[in-house]
Amino acid sequence: MPKTPRFSRPKPWTEVAAVLVDVATGRRPADMVVRNGRWVNVHSGEVIPGTDVAIAKGRFAYCGPNASHAIGEGTKVVDAGGRYLVPGLCDAHMHVESGMVTVTEFCRAVIPHGTTSMFIDPHEIANVLGLEGVRLMHDEAVDMPVNVHVQMPSCVPSAPGLENAGATLGPKDVAEAMTWENIIGLGEVMNFPGVAANDATMTGEIAATVAAGKTVGGHYASPDLGLAFHGYVAGGPEDDHEGTRVEDAIARVRQGMKAMLRLGSAWYDVATQIKAVTEQGLDPRNFILCTDDSHSGTLVDEGHMNRVVRHAIAQGLKPVTAIQMATINTAQHFRLEREIGSIAPGRLADFLIVSDLATLTIDEVYARGVRLAKGGKLEVDIPVRTYPASARNTVKLGRKLGAADFDIAAPAGANEVRARVIGVIENQAPTRALEADLPVEDGIVQMDRRNDVCQIALVERHRGTGAVVNGYVSGFGYMRDCALASTVAHDSHHMIVVGTNKADMAAAANRLGEIGGGVVLFSQGKELALVEMPIAGLMSDERAEIVAAKAGKLTAAMREMGCSLNNAYMQHSLLALVVIPELRISDMGIIDVTKFEKVDLFV
Amino acid sequence: MPKTPRFSRPKPWTEVAAVLVDVATGRRPADMVVRNGRWVNVHSGEVIPGTDVAIAKGRFAYCGPNASHAIGEGTKVVDAGGRYLVPGLCDAHMHVESGMVTVTEFCRAVIPHGTTSMFIDPHEIANVLGLEGVRLMHDEAVDMPVNVHVQMPSCVPSAPGLENAGATLGPKDVAEAMTWENIIGLGEVMNFPGVAANDATMTGEIAATVAAGKTVGGHYASPDLGLAFHGYVAGGPEDDHEGTRVEDAIARVRQGMKAMLRLGSAWYDVATQIKAVTEQGLDPRNFILCTDDSHSGTLVDEGHMNRVVRHAIAQGLKPVTAIQMATINTAQHFRLEREIGSIAPGRLADFLIVSDLATLTIDEVYARGVRLAKGGKLEVDIPVRTYPASARNTVKLGRKLGAADFDIAAPAGANEVRARVIGVIENQAPTRALEADLPVEDGIVQMDRRNDVCQIALVERHRGTGAVVNGYVSGFGYMRDCALASTVAHDSHHMIVVGTNKADMAAAANRLGEIGGGVVLFSQGKELALVEMPIAGLMSDERAEIVAAKAGKLTAAMREMGCSLNNAYMQHSLLALVVIPELRISDMGIIDVTKFEKVDLFV
Repeated sequence: MPKTPRFSRPKPWTEVAAVLVDVATGRRPADMVVRNGRWVNVHSGEVIPGTDVAIAKGRFAYCGPNASHAIGEGTKVVDAGGRYLVPGLCDAHMHVESGMVTVTEFCRAVIPHGTTSMFIDPHEIANVLGLEGVRLMHDEAVDMPVNVHVQMPSCVPSAPGLENAGATLGPKDVAEAMTWENIIGLGEVMNFPGVAANDATMTGEIAATVAAGKTVGGHYASPDLGLAFHGYVAGGPEDDHEGTRVEDAIARVRQGMKAMLRLGSAWYDVATQIKAVTEQGLDPRNFILCTDDSHSGTLVDEGHMNRVVRHAIAQGLKPVTAIQMATINTAQHFRLEREIGSIAPGRLADFLIVSDLATLTIDEVYARGVRLAKGGKLEVDIPVRTYPASARNTVKLGRKLGAADFDIAAPAGANEVRARVIGVIENQAPTRALEADLPVEDGIVQMDRRNDVCQIALVERHRGTGAVVNGYVSGFGYMRDCALASTVAHDSHHMIVVGTNKADMAAAANRLGEIGGGVVLFSQGKELALVEMPIAGLMSDERAEIVAAKAGKLTAAMREMGCSLNNAYMQHSLLALVVIPELRISDMGIIDVTKFEKVDLFV
Repeated sequence: MPKTPRFSRPKPWTEVAAVLVDVATGRRPADMVVRNGRWVNVHSGEVIPGTDVAIAKGRFAYCGPNASHAIGEGTKVVDAGGRYLVPGLCDAHMHVESGMVTVTEFCRAVIPHGTTSMFIDPHEIANVLGLEGVRLMHDEAVDMPVNVHVQMPSCVPSAPGLENAGATLGPKDVAEAMTWENIIGLGEVMNFPGVAANDATMTGEIAATVAAGKTVGGHYASPDLGLAFHGYVAGGPEDDHEGTRVEDAIARVRQGMKAMLRLGSAWYDVATQIKAVTEQGLDPRNFILCTDDSHSGTLVDEGHMNRVVRHAIAQGLKPVTAIQMATINTAQHFRLEREIGSIAPGRLADFLIVSDLATLTIDEVYARGVRLAKGGKLEVDIPVRTYPASARNTVKLGRKLGAADFDIAAPAGANEVRARVIGVIENQAPTRALEADLPVEDGIVQMDRRNDVCQIALVERHRGTGAVVNGYVSGFGYMRDCALASTVAHDSHHMIVVGTNKADMAAAANRLGEIGGGVVLFSQGKELALVEMPIAGLMSDERAEIVAAKAGKLTAAMREMGCSLNNAYMQHSLLALVVIPELRISDMGIIDVTKFEKVDLFV
């Protein structure tokens, strides 16, 4: 691996325009010329063979049939040999934290997959560390060799009144963040009832974003397309990635929003919704692809936006249309069409050399005119990012937990109780509000392993209160004594512990308290797998491939315990997400997310 | 006609968003509800029957199947009766001055035709009055009941070194203008050789515009799609309306520019170029319709953007695609998609009720939720705009001209000369560089009426120098003694006089000097027709229909003189346009616009 280069931030177009003009007209040689490519032109929708591109100062200067005039002594000449030149892929909405790694490691993982622009919403770290956390990831983003634009988290906490996060953000914070270099807009406004109710925090944050001329991200996670939806739309969000049905995508586009279709590690929302284009003929320009959440294993083993684009093509989209949805559509949405999203003069020279378009086989990845990856391997190093002490040691349990902390007392005199149970749905974010009849022994409600009902606990970890909220969950299929604990616990990121055995639940929770967070699996007192995430209890400080390996080991161990659910760990970490229906757990209790209210554990 | 309303500027979306949300959700009645329309949805590309829209504070609050919930006691309810609801039309690039009227009169003329947004480039007044002239039209624009966005003129003078205008603008002026309320970007950068040569004025103005986050308008009036074109593109212009061939449109779109296709009074550039979409299948999103220049007669008798959209449909575009090119495509290009260009929540309630889509039969025109026209008739008055004295009395000849001022002396001893002749091409902006053999009598070169070669003179009128440049022109077909003089003389707007008779040339010129500008036709000492344009010598202060009538009388009189050219007056006024090939006249001499240099009158 070559010596680590310094990644200088790209100069503003205005500072280099004169050079680009000189190169385009032949008065000055280019830094690089790529010859004989098939230009995947996302403006015209064509694939144009026999195209040369000339690059200077990290930007395209000339794109056309013959760039001989731009070749001088110092010009690096690359022969594309008739292969496709595709704009670098953009992920329109995603959370770095879902990869359990830093921004740096995320970039290292996804650059070989062809991602050169990301729109990241550091919502998770914001829930732990507030504006300081956003700033840490923002500053890391600015230093990357690819474009990492940051959406300012809008809902911290996600559901005020239903949870207590580690921090609170409001309109003033948003207004401040809008002045930061790489802030591109407001992150998904997930308090959709708040928007439709003119909640002052929501309207204030949206107004601050619009006043700054930036894009308001949406998140309307409800199947209700009636007045609540219309109220949300009128409130200003400009995109939404929470649709799951074709009618969701259609409704959003009709209202002038962008339908963001996601294929994440646990999201499979492209196939259904893309029918709005492939079958119903809607204008594809308002459809955008994203991942939202990708597990490190997905990134290392399966891919990133290349996987999404490939999948979209497999659904029947023309390749160039699918590529538009991951390039120019995204760029336009974020008002960056002069900067990224296409191979055209003036834009940053972010592009891929692709040998097969339908399968999106990426041979080489360039960003700002520098080759960063070839044959799926990173060619440049990106220095490890060290986070300050304030971003570590964030798991504050206040005390050592014992098995008894997970006892659920039955109502006095009951032999059996009917309890609410959070029902996990494979590959979907929503849960089901189930109910189960559970036996009582010695006044304590018992789990029902035969019917896959085990316990879930929300352990407070931001303020060291030592509080534990207990409940029930079904769907993981654990068949042996075990417990999985995680300080990734969307969105307020306390600690979620799911277990069939209370002693293991306590052991797992205490272990994370010792190491400052992560995810750990215990069985009968033994630690089976651990991924340390000392940064805010959300992110590892190790290399992505190591994290992926550890996460892989965790998945295997969970499977040994009987859990065969796809992306079970991600499902685990979403069980406190009190903005997506139907039933969740928070530090305040069991939450009915169809009504946005706390409910009793027992029916 | 009802009492003149006060047209309050629309409040920013952020100030009224809460009201829109309340209306959308049924907590507050709308100001107006339109029921049972066919929603021409330019986002999805669909036409959706059975649509209601609710409007409050001049903006759409709800667009969907049923707005009953938004109807209260004070709500005005309009029954669309199954007719189409079409977004108000946008003219993406145009010069008000070409209509010979004020902004106010232009709006009065075009609102009944369905135009609710205009992007005007007050390039003509800028050439006479500089930044003050731009400000005058800008301030008038702000007060209109429809959206009049102003592009800051970029090339004043258009061709430095080839002409002297009444004023000079540069980067500092552009930077200042970018702070004005209704300035939307930089007007067509027509000094295309300057851009490709990194001329400091051009690069400075473009940089100031990009730094302000606004749109750089283009104007590349050359058939050369080689390196000169590529240099221009690299220099930053984002659109171009000067294309005439299908390959022009394709080249622009491929390079990431918007192809603006124009149908003006004398421009017929849609039919050829739209084949890029209808035959070659290019993505229509990057095509935009505009008029550029419309004669008052065209506005009063034929229409405005409705005429262009109708024409585009007639070329084979789907109606909704053609409408996109005059609505949402334009809005996005100018980064106004949250404000205009579609019928969707949050946008200004600018819309048309249309009874037939293919013919675009407009029954009613609404802007900001107020009905402005019905059945082609304006329903509200817009007060006459009075321009200050500084904008009048701008025609300074310095002396009284005589027939001898138009004598062209032959080289000593010549009996015949071969002279360059500006050849007018019907319905096209470019001219031909012709040559003609002309007889000499008494040392003075004679015109050749039989071969349609008459004289053209450029009379200096900004500084009272009394200078006259003489030359030859062919194509008007004047068969009788006459002269037409005009102080509309793109782009530096001196005075152009074309005549078969030198005494009439002098009489016409002197007449315009007396009245402060306009256009006048003399024949054998008699004034046959006159349109007074006292505002900067460019615009009338009369009502559009009166101006159209006077202009109609002028056309008729010109026809009587033998001139049957379509839009002959507009062709006349373009003969000093030293930025469009091939041969032109300026106050500095005869200009070869293929080489951008002054040439001798005699070959």
